[in-house]
Amino acid sequence: MKQTIAIQGIQGSNHHKVAQAYFGNEVQLDECLSFDALIASLLQEKSEYAIMAIENTIAGSIIPNYALIDANNIHINGEFYLNIQHQLMALPNQTIQDINEVCSHPMALLQCKEFFKQYPHIKLVEDVDTAAVAQRIQEQKRTGIAAIATKMAAELFELEILSGEIQTIKTNMTRFVILQKQQPKNGIDQIDKASLRFELDHKRGSLATVLNVMSDCKLNLTKIQSLPIIETPWKYAFFVDVTFENYEDYTKAISVLEIMTTSLKILGTYKNRRNA
Amino acid sequence: MKQTIAIQGIQGSNHHKVAQAYFGNEVQLDECLSFDALIASLLQEKSEYAIMAIENTIAGSIIPNYALIDANNIHINGEFYLNIQHQLMALPNQTIQDINEVCSHPMALLQCKEFFKQYPHIKLVEDVDTAAVAQRIQEQKRTGIAAIATKMAAELFELEILSGEIQTIKTNMTRFVILQKQQPKNGIDQIDKASLRFELDHKRGSLATVLNVMSDCKLNLTKIQSLPIIETPWKYAFFVDVTFENYEDYTKAISVLEIMTTSLKILGTYKNRRNA
Repeated sequence: MKQTIAIQGIQGSNHHKVAQAYFGNEVQLDECLSFDALIASLLQEKSEYAIMAIENTIAGSIIPNYALIDANNIHINGEFYLNIQHQLMALPNQTIQDINEVCSHPMALLQCKEFFKQYPHIKLVEDVDTAAVAQRIQEQKRTGIAAIATKMAAELFELEILSGEIQTIKTNMTRFVILQKQQPKNGIDQIDKASLRFELDHKRGSLATVLNVMSDCKLNLTKIQSLPIIETPWKYAFFVDVTFENYEDYTKAISVLEIMTTSLKILGTYKNRRNA
Repeated sequence: MKQTIAIQGIQGSNHHKVAQAYFGNEVQLDECLSFDALIASLLQEKSEYAIMAIENTIAGSIIPNYALIDANNIHINGEFYLNIQHQLMALPNQTIQDINEVCSHPMALLQCKEFFKQYPHIKLVEDVDTAAVAQRIQEQKRTGIAAIATKMAAELFELEILSGEIQTIKTNMTRFVILQKQQPKNGIDQIDKASLRFELDHKRGSLATVLNVMSDCKLNLTKIQSLPIIETPWKYAFFVDVTFENYEDYTKAISVLEIMTTSLKILGTYKNRRNA
């Protein structure tokens, strides 16, 4: 039986590209039009895995997604990095001068903002998904409107690329996490990265002390972020990612952190794919 | 002459409320429909100050705004905390059953998501500003559409509140920063908080060492966030906020940080308004 993978967006989206690269072509997709729907797909067991964008080199962390993973006790089972390229596409036989409106996901619009400064006649409109706009343009035969989406979407929905790689920053790496409802059973030899969440008392130096422990245990910090705890304004939780060479170093650090922090939660342990 | 204050949104918006609370009623507004336009207003000297939402207790930091302040070398001259209440409003003599579409700012929609789960017939549509929707409903006499905005907007644009305080988390504190193009000249006795940005080598324990220095110099960390450096994927910069009792402690810490970090930048020194 084919595995079902929940993605944000429809076929042809960047999440679909990640699903193919991570799981191969033989997957069934559950197309979700919001990150909430993505999590619901996992919780209701409509899908075995979900793919969720979590940070990119332009806008940083997608903070509400961290909150979704945390609030629903979802597990991170892996990660994948994709260099995202945005293409401007429309029905064939139009030039960019014929386009008066571009619809796409807010993140795609943000990443291509500079490009559109040369075309002040074009109105930028937010939509829920990059590929869904491409599909709609084809289905409704809409001229004058362009989508910002992947080459895969242009091929699937038979649109013509008016301009390629229109994002401002050409190296536009996005990190996706692979999510599961159940606790994953990765073998120890498959694990060299962990995502943690913990809370700390508001005592001076408390975070420094925790980072000292991590450093002493040979953990490398690859990300840190303080986040408000929703029900307790201005009390902060911390989300950190660490990499390590020996699993024993990691378990030793966790034993100490369990004593030193409050509400320590391991969001997931998995294989670092950063340099893969 | 009246001071001109640039705000995100139009009169009746939360940024307008902050402008009034911080500068008093006698200000002239430069209404900007994006944060980019807000920064442009400062840079082009159309306004002396700009007010920008920077983090809230629900979604965390508004990361692209940090990038805007940093990239344009804007100075933080102060902060203000506002407990944001969202009201659902429409033209008079309608009930919530008559409403089929609600337009508002994405952050407002996110914060009221739970409320609308009871009304699945209502379509949620993103717009650039909370108050601008209220204004448009009045000007175009649009029935069937509601705005999520402030009480001030309901009064200004003569709309009826269909439901008050519809945000999920009742304590919805948002932090705004007051921005200036020029380096502010706050007196030392007015300063007990600083916003810093620095970069670090990817050496294990480098952040712990920096936080140790801050702690030794009696600085309290109130916020920390790693952010990607746009042109150098996966090299991270750190944004931190610190509070202190003695300005000398702060200057001592800065002297050490200048040696220990790369590209240290003081985004602003100002008065902590957290407990004001």
